[in-house]
Amino acid sequence: MSSIFSRIIVGDIPCHKVAENENCFAFMDIAPLAVGHVLVVPKEEVDRYFDLSDKQLSELNLFAKKIAFAIEQVVPCKRVGVAVIGLEVPHAHIHLVPLNSVSDINFEREKLDLSNEKLAEVAELIRGALN
Amino acid sequence: MSSIFSRIIVGDIPCHKVAENENCFAFMDIAPLAVGHVLVVPKEEVDRYFDLSDKQLSELNLFAKKIAFAIEQVVPCKRVGVAVIGLEVPHAHIHLVPLNSVSDINFEREKLDLSNEKLAEVAELIRGALN
Repeated sequence: MSSIFSRIIVGDIPCHKVAENENCFAFMDIAPLAVGHVLVVPKEEVDRYFDLSDKQLSELNLFAKKIAFAIEQVVPCKRVGVAVIGLEVPHAHIHLVPLNSVSDINFEREKLDLSNEKLAEVAELIRGALN
Repeated sequence: MSSIFSRIIVGDIPCHKVAENENCFAFMDIAPLAVGHVLVVPKEEVDRYFDLSDKQLSELNLFAKKIAFAIEQVVPCKRVGVAVIGLEVPHAHIHLVPLNSVSDINFEREKLDLSNEKLAEVAELIRGALN
C-alpha cells in the first residue's frame, strides 16, 4: 500500500503543491506548526531519511534549499528551520518551518488550524517566490 | 570573533569529538535532548544552514548520514531525528537526536544533565561503530 505522501504525489489525494522536480516534491503541511510550514519529500517511497541514497539525500536537500529561500521571501521569519522526525508517516520527509522562536518547531505543540484558502494563498506566494 | 563551534573545531575549547573529515566535524552536544545527541557542523563558519553552498550542504548531510547510522548501532532508538534551528549559535549545525518519541526532539524541553564521563563513553561507542 502506498504512503499518504505517495498518494499525494500522484494526485490521488489533493494537496497545496509548492514545487516538484524529477525526484522531489514539496507541499504545504495541512497541520502546520507555523504559517509557511512545507513538507519536502522524495518521490520514491523510502521510509527512513538516512536510508535515502547519497544522491537522493543530496538532491532532496538542494531542492529543500530552494524552497526555504522562497519561504523566507514571503513569510516573515528569522530563518527557516529543518526537522526530520518520521515517527508517523513511513515516507521520508523534511519539515521546513519558518522560525521566529524555538517554539515554532516544537512538534508537541498544538498545530495551527489554517483554512484551505489560507494554505492555498501561502502556497501561491511561495510558488511565486520560486519563479 | 570565531563562533564557539569554530573554537571547538580548532581545539581551543574541548569537546567529545565523534568524527571529522576534510570539511565537516561532529561532537557530542553537552546540553543533549537525548543520550547520543550529536552536533554536525561544517568547518567553515557559515551562519545559516541554507547559505551553505550546494557542495557543503551535500557533504554535510552525507557526513551526518554516516554518524546517524553509527548512533543507531549503539543508542537504543527507533530512528535518528534531524533538526536545524540556528537561533543561538551563528554557525550552521545539524542536530542528530536519537528518537523514541517526538518529545525527544522538543527543544523547549529541559536538557539532560549528563556527566562528562557519560558523554565521553557515548562518544567512544559512536566512534567505535564508525570504524
